Amino acid sequence: MTKYFTILPFLIYCSSAFAQDYTQFVNPFIGTSNYGATHPGAVLPAGMASVSPFNVAYKKGDGNVFEKDSEWHSRTYVHENNFLTGYSHVNLSGVGCPDLGSILLMPTTGKLELDPEKYGSTYRLEQASPGYYSNHLTKYNIKTEVSATMRTGISRYTFPAGESHILLNLGLGLTNETGAALKIVSHTEIEGYKLIGTFCYNPEDVRPVYFVAKFSRPADKFGAWKKMPEYTAEAAWTTYNNIYKPYNGYSYEMAGENIGTYFSFQTREGEAIEVKIGISYVSIANARENLEKEQPAFSFDQTAAKAKSVWNSLLKRIEVQGGTDDEKTIFYTALYHILLHPNIFQDVNGDYPLMESSGIGKTNGNRYTVFSLWDTYRNLHPFLSLVYPELQSDMINSMLSMYKESGWLPKWELLGMETNVMVGDPATPVLVDSWLRGIKDFDIDQAYEAMKKAAITTDGNKLRPGIEKYSTLGYIPEGAYDNLWGTVSTTLEYNISDWNLAQLARELGKNDDYKYFNKRALSYRNYFDKFSGMLRPRMSDGSWLTPFDPKAGANFEPVVGFVEGNAWQYRFYVPHDINGMIKLVGGSKKFVNELQRCFDEGNYDMANEPDITYPFLFNYVKGEEWRSQLKVRELIGKHYSNTPSGIPGNDDTGTLSAWLVYSMLGIYPHCPGDMSYALVSPVFDKVTIHLNQKYYPGERLVIQTEKNKPGDVIIEKVKLNGAPYNGYFIDHQNLINGSELLFKLKGH
Amino acid sequence: MTKYFTILPFLIYCSSAFAQDYTQFVNPFIGTSNYGATHPGAVLPAGMASVSPFNVAYKKGDGNVFEKDSEWHSRTYVHENNFLTGYSHVNLSGVGCPDLGSILLMPTTGKLELDPEKYGSTYRLEQASPGYYSNHLTKYNIKTEVSATMRTGISRYTFPAGESHILLNLGLGLTNETGAALKIVSHTEIEGYKLIGTFCYNPEDVRPVYFVAKFSRPADKFGAWKKMPEYTAEAAWTTYNNIYKPYNGYSYEMAGENIGTYFSFQTREGEAIEVKIGISYVSIANARENLEKEQPAFSFDQTAAKAKSVWNSLLKRIEVQGGTDDEKTIFYTALYHILLHPNIFQDVNGDYPLMESSGIGKTNGNRYTVFSLWDTYRNLHPFLSLVYPELQSDMINSMLSMYKESGWLPKWELLGMETNVMVGDPATPVLVDSWLRGIKDFDIDQAYEAMKKAAITTDGNKLRPGIEKYSTLGYIPEGAYDNLWGTVSTTLEYNISDWNLAQLARELGKNDDYKYFNKRALSYRNYFDKFSGMLRPRMSDGSWLTPFDPKAGANFEPVVGFVEGNAWQYRFYVPHDINGMIKLVGGSKKFVNELQRCFDEGNYDMANEPDITYPFLFNYVKGEEWRSQLKVRELIGKHYSNTPSGIPGNDDTGTLSAWLVYSMLGIYPHCPGDMSYALVSPVFDKVTIHLNQKYYPGERLVIQTEKNKPGDVIIEKVKLNGAPYNGYFIDHQNLINGSELLFKLKGH
Repeated sequence: MTKYFTILPFLIYCSSAFAQDYTQFVNPFIGTSNYGATHPGAVLPAGMASVSPFNVAYKKGDGNVFEKDSEWHSRTYVHENNFLTGYSHVNLSGVGCPDLGSILLMPTTGKLELDPEKYGSTYRLEQASPGYYSNHLTKYNIKTEVSATMRTGISRYTFPAGESHILLNLGLGLTNETGAALKIVSHTEIEGYKLIGTFCYNPEDVRPVYFVAKFSRPADKFGAWKKMPEYTAEAAWTTYNNIYKPYNGYSYEMAGENIGTYFSFQTREGEAIEVKIGISYVSIANARENLEKEQPAFSFDQTAAKAKSVWNSLLKRIEVQGGTDDEKTIFYTALYHILLHPNIFQDVNGDYPLMESSGIGKTNGNRYTVFSLWDTYRNLHPFLSLVYPELQSDMINSMLSMYKESGWLPKWELLGMETNVMVGDPATPVLVDSWLRGIKDFDIDQAYEAMKKAAITTDGNKLRPGIEKYSTLGYIPEGAYDNLWGTVSTTLEYNISDWNLAQLARELGKNDDYKYFNKRALSYRNYFDKFSGMLRPRMSDGSWLTPFDPKAGANFEPVVGFVEGNAWQYRFYVPHDINGMIKLVGGSKKFVNELQRCFDEGNYDMANEPDITYPFLFNYVKGEEWRSQLKVRELIGKHYSNTPSGIPGNDDTGTLSAWLVYSMLGIYPHCPGDMSYALVSPVFDKVTIHLNQKYYPGERLVIQTEKNKPGDVIIEKVKLNGAPYNGYFIDHQNLINGSELLFKLKGH
Repeated sequence: MTKYFTILPFLIYCSSAFAQDYTQFVNPFIGTSNYGATHPGAVLPAGMASVSPFNVAYKKGDGNVFEKDSEWHSRTYVHENNFLTGYSHVNLSGVGCPDLGSILLMPTTGKLELDPEKYGSTYRLEQASPGYYSNHLTKYNIKTEVSATMRTGISRYTFPAGESHILLNLGLGLTNETGAALKIVSHTEIEGYKLIGTFCYNPEDVRPVYFVAKFSRPADKFGAWKKMPEYTAEAAWTTYNNIYKPYNGYSYEMAGENIGTYFSFQTREGEAIEVKIGISYVSIANARENLEKEQPAFSFDQTAAKAKSVWNSLLKRIEVQGGTDDEKTIFYTALYHILLHPNIFQDVNGDYPLMESSGIGKTNGNRYTVFSLWDTYRNLHPFLSLVYPELQSDMINSMLSMYKESGWLPKWELLGMETNVMVGDPATPVLVDSWLRGIKDFDIDQAYEAMKKAAITTDGNKLRPGIEKYSTLGYIPEGAYDNLWGTVSTTLEYNISDWNLAQLARELGKNDDYKYFNKRALSYRNYFDKFSGMLRPRMSDGSWLTPFDPKAGANFEPVVGFVEGNAWQYRFYVPHDINGMIKLVGGSKKFVNELQRCFDEGNYDMANEPDITYPFLFNYVKGEEWRSQLKVRELIGKHYSNTPSGIPGNDDTGTLSAWLVYSMLGIYPHCPGDMSYALVSPVFDKVTIHLNQKYYPGERLVIQTEKNKPGDVIIEKVKLNGAPYNGYFIDHQNLINGSELLFKLKGH
């Protein structure tokens, strides 16, 4: 892969002088192939703005393999591609649906060309590190560098001598939503907005993202442009027919679908021009204020240094010793990916768009957005609760504000819009799990009210379609509801949410609720089909869906009863009742055999969430825990690597990365809301997690690992604070008290 | 023509009670066929906003014959058509190029339909009078009525019971410019802008027109909409593919090319909903202020009554007696069409867009726009100077402001943009003619400076391309200039401008200038080809263009050397030197013969401007004046009528109407800048023109006409203030002193 350069060699060389620099172990190219859907652009932790190279338009250049409009495509950047058409300033990381990837800035030279298919360029000499990305545009001999603050991006383009241009394109982008407006304010400033949305092709969710762009040097010439429609009868008189039309010197409002601006400069050899762009989801005025507050001057180097420093301050929360450079890199890069979403939504003045409303809210704290909860409730939020509880607290409070504003907790919240993507009621396990772990600085009564509303409302329940039959029949029958995706999967999700709510009810002394929800949490058993040993869709009359193929539905193929998976992949997804499941399937031995079959027969999918807790479930059967230890290590080796394809599939806003980080630490929260972690073999010799003492009594959690020889992965024994520790689960309370966990590993 | 109803019968019945109501004699349907390009919508004199039925989209309905995109089409309304897709709120009247015809409001009922091709409706029961238009939508059983103030429109839709909608469409329109943005402000208000321009397919001239729309009743539901692009690979997941997508309840900014809003209402039978729309070319805030100041309440009837009253106050400036109702109607309708353009450009607060700049100016007076000067300098401005000198004064001052703002006088100014349509330097005769007629309340020194700049600047002369060769050679040779349209025509135009400038120079005592320009004004003679008797294009070396066909170029066919005409149509276009031309062609008899041939052999075109003074030129030859009298009356009868096709062709912002009004009065300003009118036979028994005594000493001009028998058209004798008057020309001074002109007509 000749065009793939990281700045690792240099950084490693310097690492002795900067021992605290963990950004050296982040490779932002990981996940940019194999549908990981991450991008290598510049972004801060939880950054609202980001600056990503955009190379997914047109099958052109030195082989653009993937083209955004030729498939279901959710990536602003694909490592295999090599035709850059600009830098997008709002981007999602690791999501499965196209959106954002908009507000594209692109430098060019020579004759002004407005068609991105023509002005795009191949590139080489890519470099990326947290808060920084750079390449060299081969067509123009321009060095491009980008960095970011929380709500702004900055680009530095180093031009050759001659006629140079910087194009802002509001037409091209990843989002399927069309339409934009802009105004050239002066020779150094542009303002406007671009409509984004239709996430997952959902036509309802649309809003504008506002921006203000400022240039470090006044343009010698500027203008707007727009692609004109195709004229037929009038073609004879129409100068710009189905092509890009320049509006030279135009400084009124411009609106349309394929519009942009050009700023032209006569540049000296090696002259650098910087462009900073402020973003807001509230207004142009706020975008300008964000820009003025976060980047009052033009100082690319300072901005990039600040970004690196901010990253380091979060990454160093976990210090590792031992392991190879590649292991450290996949670990810290996963940590990096975890910290991208949910991200900040409010402007520097505290303004943010209210949930599901066109109103504007104001907050003194942090308002988060981009909650891909069907993914993240499983491990990412439990991870944040452990390592970054202050972030998780703000996220919880953001979720509760969404409830206050819209009447419902979020499911897949994107920029203040409930996209209703995926199924279940995943906010509940996030809230409960956080509370139980020790994050209690939110209004638990209101949280309970919000969760219970979703759990019991039968009329117009926006979060839990099918709740009526679910409550009365104990399962959701096939065919009873239009537009209800995956009766079995949805029921399983409701079960774990109910189980979580029950745990909290017990904590809060709401015993009736506890009993009710705890019982309802086991209703999945109604789907258990003794004949197949599977959870099998049922009809309203209680009969089984027939025919039934437990393998049908793998690889995201649609299948009746299940959501992004087949019966195998959902077979054991009752993490709150694995012991019950063991009985159902016929005992421990049968359970172990079937779980092993799941892996052996290719029914386990590392690239999607429903089954990602399965590798840890062998821990439930005494004497079989080695299977979890082996399997997890095998999956890490097979699916994760320090390469662009080093994430098994869509990162799902960090969920697959959270799986990796936990697995490498040797602890995994196998069931959200259950304070028990499954133990597997840690990868590193020593890991120190610096705990946030506002939430946890301990200063740090240390995980030490001793091996007899390199390659040992089987747990021989475990010690907690020097004392032998029995069992392969450990409770959260044991990790947050300043404990030291020691693993002694042996060969297989 | 079954769908053609005027409200004349009712008004005539009432006319004895309202003797002063001249609006009864205006038929706004005149000119809506035969490419007249007028519209029957509601508009005030010089109104910035107007509300016109828009029926030129789609070949549909009960036979839409003309379709805007299938030809060069400059009409918002064509009488032959019958498929209404809304009411446009900015419109041009009688222009030859497509523009404006935008901001379309349309009522519908039943299931919400957003595609104008589907929601359009046929209609019947059309009524139109100054400031009022109404019809009945057959598809929906909705009565629609519209009226206007200077900068706003109002619509009243009377709905049947049920689900009703009012759609605002910013995509459909006559302009070829695309792009719009809007925001639904509340359940009763929308704001936004639409880009307009590319007038005459000139891509450079583009700007936004801003609007605010307010509804008399809150919508029960509202939303935005947009036509989505065509998806191919993604079509499988895309709900709205190449169709109109509703954004229900959307109230953020919306931008795009084919966008709009719907406001839905549950209506009672016969419920009327009013919508008023304010327009501004400066800002949305100004559009709102215009609306609040001009229509503070919802009162359709009051607004319509006010509009009628304003029209009457101007129309009654000329009172006629005698003549048939049809004659009165074509006369007052022509007066109505004269008064539409130039129109007001400034907002109620005095703001207006500076000429050729994105800046905003402020005026205490009236700033006019839409100067189609190649057309209007010939007769419309001289007419305004005589009958409405206060309007002409404001127009002159507007033209001078344009010079101050942009450095050049206007040629074809549209909404602050110099479109450079047509040729010559027509501002000069307008300024000079006005000054000589007695309009002197403008800065004559600055005007002189501006005119002389155009007349003598050789480098970068924006108004007079070819000026260098014109000045040195005495003519513009073929092939010497790229993009110079019509060497002979352009020279002729420069000649008359030079002659005008010379007249003013003499007035101002600038004798050198007088001599120079007076001489240069005769340089057309260099084109006189003795062999053909024609003005013939020449090459740089002095040789004639060969081959040369004096008939080539009729009917707007392109031809070398001439602009929208052939050599015949330009043969006598030296109105300032007809006596010179008589000599050139070989004397009076030859001149009369050739002029008569021009008519007899079909070389005269009543539908375009170059030759419209020809019918009056027989007056130059003693004893042949009867030919002018007969010819003018014949042309009126042949080309003008009280029918939609009652204007010979494109009204050219009132120029063909001004020809009619003058011709019916019996006086015609045969040469702008020459204070002499040619006399022909008046149509009416008595005409009283109430003069503006701020400009003219006389209270009124009375033109009486006596006939021996109906049908007499030959002037037997003329009396001025009771004394016999000799000759067939009369000087302006004789008309503005309170004179009475008496014509005695006889049979032929």
